[in-house]
Amino acid sequence: MLLEKTATGFTLSLDGCEILRHAADNPALFAGRGEERMDMYRGNFDIEDYVVERVALAHAEVEGDTIRLSNAPGQPVRLVLTVEGDSLLLAAPDASINRLWLRTVAGKDEHVWGGGEQMSYFDLRGRRFPLWTSEPGVGRDKTTEITFQSDVTGKAGGDYYNTNYPQPTYISSRRYALHVDTTAYAVFDFRRETFHEVEVWEVPEKIEFFAADTFRDLVGKLSLRFGRQPELPEWVYGGAIIGLKDGKTSFERLEKIRAAGVKVSGLWCEDWVGLRHTSFGARLFWDWVGNEERYPHLRQKIAELADENIRFLGYVNPYLCVDGSLFPEAEASGYFATDAEGKTALVDFGEFDCGVVDFTNPDAAAWFAERVIGENMLDYGLSGWMADFGEYLPIDVKLANGVDAKRMHNAWPTLWAEVNARAVASRGKTGEALFFMRAGYTGVQAHCPLLWGGDQSVDFSRHDGLVTVISGALSSGLLGNAYHHSDIGGYTSLFGNVRTAELLMRWAEMAAFTPVMRSHEGNRPRDNLQIDQDEVVLAHFARMTAIYVHLAPYLKVLSAEAAETGLPVQRPFFLHHEDDRATYAIQDAYLYGADLLVAPVWRAGETERTVYLPKGARWVHVWSGAAHEGGREVTVAAPLGQPPVFYRAGAAHEKLFADIGTL
Amino acid sequence: MLLEKTATGFTLSLDGCEILRHAADNPALFAGRGEERMDMYRGNFDIEDYVVERVALAHAEVEGDTIRLSNAPGQPVRLVLTVEGDSLLLAAPDASINRLWLRTVAGKDEHVWGGGEQMSYFDLRGRRFPLWTSEPGVGRDKTTEITFQSDVTGKAGGDYYNTNYPQPTYISSRRYALHVDTTAYAVFDFRRETFHEVEVWEVPEKIEFFAADTFRDLVGKLSLRFGRQPELPEWVYGGAIIGLKDGKTSFERLEKIRAAGVKVSGLWCEDWVGLRHTSFGARLFWDWVGNEERYPHLRQKIAELADENIRFLGYVNPYLCVDGSLFPEAEASGYFATDAEGKTALVDFGEFDCGVVDFTNPDAAAWFAERVIGENMLDYGLSGWMADFGEYLPIDVKLANGVDAKRMHNAWPTLWAEVNARAVASRGKTGEALFFMRAGYTGVQAHCPLLWGGDQSVDFSRHDGLVTVISGALSSGLLGNAYHHSDIGGYTSLFGNVRTAELLMRWAEMAAFTPVMRSHEGNRPRDNLQIDQDEVVLAHFARMTAIYVHLAPYLKVLSAEAAETGLPVQRPFFLHHEDDRATYAIQDAYLYGADLLVAPVWRAGETERTVYLPKGARWVHVWSGAAHEGGREVTVAAPLGQPPVFYRAGAAHEKLFADIGTL
Repeated sequence: MLLEKTATGFTLSLDGCEILRHAADNPALFAGRGEERMDMYRGNFDIEDYVVERVALAHAEVEGDTIRLSNAPGQPVRLVLTVEGDSLLLAAPDASINRLWLRTVAGKDEHVWGGGEQMSYFDLRGRRFPLWTSEPGVGRDKTTEITFQSDVTGKAGGDYYNTNYPQPTYISSRRYALHVDTTAYAVFDFRRETFHEVEVWEVPEKIEFFAADTFRDLVGKLSLRFGRQPELPEWVYGGAIIGLKDGKTSFERLEKIRAAGVKVSGLWCEDWVGLRHTSFGARLFWDWVGNEERYPHLRQKIAELADENIRFLGYVNPYLCVDGSLFPEAEASGYFATDAEGKTALVDFGEFDCGVVDFTNPDAAAWFAERVIGENMLDYGLSGWMADFGEYLPIDVKLANGVDAKRMHNAWPTLWAEVNARAVASRGKTGEALFFMRAGYTGVQAHCPLLWGGDQSVDFSRHDGLVTVISGALSSGLLGNAYHHSDIGGYTSLFGNVRTAELLMRWAEMAAFTPVMRSHEGNRPRDNLQIDQDEVVLAHFARMTAIYVHLAPYLKVLSAEAAETGLPVQRPFFLHHEDDRATYAIQDAYLYGADLLVAPVWRAGETERTVYLPKGARWVHVWSGAAHEGGREVTVAAPLGQPPVFYRAGAAHEKLFADIGTL
Repeated sequence: MLLEKTATGFTLSLDGCEILRHAADNPALFAGRGEERMDMYRGNFDIEDYVVERVALAHAEVEGDTIRLSNAPGQPVRLVLTVEGDSLLLAAPDASINRLWLRTVAGKDEHVWGGGEQMSYFDLRGRRFPLWTSEPGVGRDKTTEITFQSDVTGKAGGDYYNTNYPQPTYISSRRYALHVDTTAYAVFDFRRETFHEVEVWEVPEKIEFFAADTFRDLVGKLSLRFGRQPELPEWVYGGAIIGLKDGKTSFERLEKIRAAGVKVSGLWCEDWVGLRHTSFGARLFWDWVGNEERYPHLRQKIAELADENIRFLGYVNPYLCVDGSLFPEAEASGYFATDAEGKTALVDFGEFDCGVVDFTNPDAAAWFAERVIGENMLDYGLSGWMADFGEYLPIDVKLANGVDAKRMHNAWPTLWAEVNARAVASRGKTGEALFFMRAGYTGVQAHCPLLWGGDQSVDFSRHDGLVTVISGALSSGLLGNAYHHSDIGGYTSLFGNVRTAELLMRWAEMAAFTPVMRSHEGNRPRDNLQIDQDEVVLAHFARMTAIYVHLAPYLKVLSAEAAETGLPVQRPFFLHHEDDRATYAIQDAYLYGADLLVAPVWRAGETERTVYLPKGARWVHVWSGAAHEGGREVTVAAPLGQPPVFYRAGAAHEKLFADIGTL
């Protein structure tokens, strides 16, 4: 990183790209003090800041690699920046500072991506993104009735920026990336024409910068920085993971599904721990032990499934219900986060209370990995699970490491991922047992082998439907999360909003072109259409699993590529077409590896789709065989069963791709 | 005002009440710079501020009556305060400052009132109030379906602080008042325990303080400062003003209403200018000339009504439609506000465009007063009118006085009131012709003889229904607006929300105990119940006008008192019971003068009402005659027709009050 003195300030550049430009009359840094109000309602946060002071650090004194910043000449130094390699180290002699604002240089036509897993907007330019792990919201659109109802009944409607997985990292189309080393609340604001503003609710120790000649190299660097996932387990390529939570009936239903020709790699029963009946309906029993009342002879069943090359998957989250078997064990050992009086902090999840296992206590983390995940899950025979939650650390609990829970809140998803990964590693099953998470933060990449896109609504809505999964995959993928997938058919069914056959089919069409196909019955299975309830849907689903399996040889190449280079399986067009700026903001289509282009139908009632094909290649529509020169939009027929997919003419797997059209 | 130096700052006190306390480590003043975004949608504003800097003016140097403030010792002086009498004069040597924040001392149990006409909260403590004249919103409650629909369809839902009449003045229960001399956007924030924060989007020239031993004296001082209204016209005491907008049919309907025993003082036809038919329905034709097509022989009719002691009232607002007769006249004289290119700025009011008469141009104001209101309205025979709007000055027009429209926006209601008052005065009709406004700002008191509470929804809702009128009357009343009234039955009927008979009757019951009774057909007359459509409603209405007329001798006393002392007709309990702190936050009941206590039923379906009676008096329930010692809550029966009203035992008008029970 190059630090250069200017008349009244300095510039900082990386590989010739100017990132910071500071002058006395146009300062790049502001420091101050805020008093926040943060209220949590079941994972949804209401956050407001009262900025008591925000002062330009207008005066800079540059000496060697060090910049000393103060309000004005002769005033006390409030912030010291030191350039170290490609990073900026920060230190604040003024301990009263708890807010920092940093302006980076922006170009008028610049695009910005990242921010973790962003479900509404892939290109972040023009908007403001608070970075705080939380429930993503239902509907996530203040103009919709569903969001309104969710807000009114549970403060749960959310907005475009709410995400299970935020991360204070962005990639600029100027081919650099910025990452803030912090777990404090932060905001990326990309609304201004000449600068971006990074706001952090602390003085972070370090801000890291990355630059590369190509976007692919930049992604590679980030994936090395944040951690890479192992390759996909071999067993996944066998077909879809079927999600059923119907107790022992699940096995019968699985048989019917298989009999219909569905290729199956796993059976996922989140109710493997049994149910709790509340006035809201059936919930899972949050005590992580196989429930042989609900699933008689479960271990035997797991073994029988294994004989047919079908894995069994379960569910876990970082809480323990007070009336479960594990709670007293954890409490006796002091493994729970505590309240102000030193008692176990209890969190109400809706007619039942839970303790929060304190992962900042190394003994608690080790216990959860060994005793809960290791013994109760892996040794029991599970090959994978949904590692749910991670976003809910209450901001008022006391933790073993003594750090304010407001600072640990964002760190929690990664700690949670680490506990899961450690358990898997302890059984030598890294790259073999597959858990998937929706929550994330910096570093989750190193531990979590697979993201899932969270709880979409069971609809085609712009901000909470099928299309949001693509934005989630692309944004998280750029930050080193190579594998992404979603609940086929969506999850959240509220206020009378239920799945249509069309939605289930369109979602399956997309899922066939993602690393993992997995179905989910949703939050209200009885009210919503399931894949095994409609013959047309089931046959269509079977065909999509056949396509998925057909593409396994290609997916294996992508998986190897991910492990080697950090490139995600699902990629924005520009990763391979960086000179084609028309591709920079596309978020409803993606490259599946370099050579397949997937443009899912994401609106109801559509039977054709228009998609921009990137320049510099010829793209062959798999269903018609028609070839199109890139650099323009084409419209193709897209009846159910024929998702708009193109392959690059001349690709290594050209034959394999062409054969999709015959399936 | 007493300025005293302290170790690192100063204190400012008025009559022993400490108002400002400044210390280097606990500064009372902050200055900075903001960049606002303001979008207007038909009188509704979306406003957001990007605070670039907010710096504590921590260092104070006190010399005589002058305080020089800077960021730190040795730094340039940024703000100079000078104590002059009970005011603080402000000057900013630093021209870059466009935001000022001032913290006043707050007590834990302090109550705060004022802020103009506040419809949702009378006691402002605990909340933040932007002060910007605008549409007040429909529903004004983000948890209601009506507000949601209004927001989605027209950005028109509003919130608790939206008001036609804001004013940067507050009264503290510590018996002082603060007024900011500004028309810039401002915010009063009463959410903190130890201070209030006043935010102004400029450095105002002056902040005024008032103190008195009693709240009544404080109100008296404010009413002198802002202006007092003349006494009510004698003709008003004759009964209700009946609002009909049915063309010539209005006269027939009036006859039926009178025949049913309704006491009538005026007929108010806002459609006296004729109609314009749009796809939204019928609108008024915004060209301020009597329309003798819609009202044949109108002048003759006005004279005939006068013979029966019934006045005729009309409607006007500060716009002129492009297709009217007055527009070309005003445009030829250059009386309109202009756009960036110097052309007449046109505002779209929904399928028709209007010019904005520029009241900063003295010739334009004089023309509107003389030519429009004087000739077309007063000389034509009108005895009063709704002087509508005042909140809509677009923030991007160019004005004759060269001041930024963002600064003139809040000033507009008072300019508009002044034009109306000047017209009335020019005909010697001050205190005789009665116009009423919903918009207001500092100084409107001196010009507008009567406020009306704006466009409530036709319902019992907490934030936009009947009860909000009381809060509006009490808050505006404390700032020197002695006369307040409202549309009987409410105005806004949207999304299927329509008037019930119960609502109409409850509203009439309240209106009988306000300075003026006036009915309104609402925005959708055909969809909503009218007073003459239901015999029970009509009979009930007639009885309420009888009560109103019965109370005229008392109301005349109150009106004289208002002119003499500035006390409003409708008063919060504490004006006469200031030692009874239990009365400080009551906003759903009021004193009508010192001796009548009115507690309207404001919830649907209620047939009794609980009300706190102030200490130090015995209160007699007018319907039962039962007497209650003050200082506690009582519950009384309140069937339709028996609004909960009490009189003070021993009051001068005791006999008159007791006789209400016989009507």
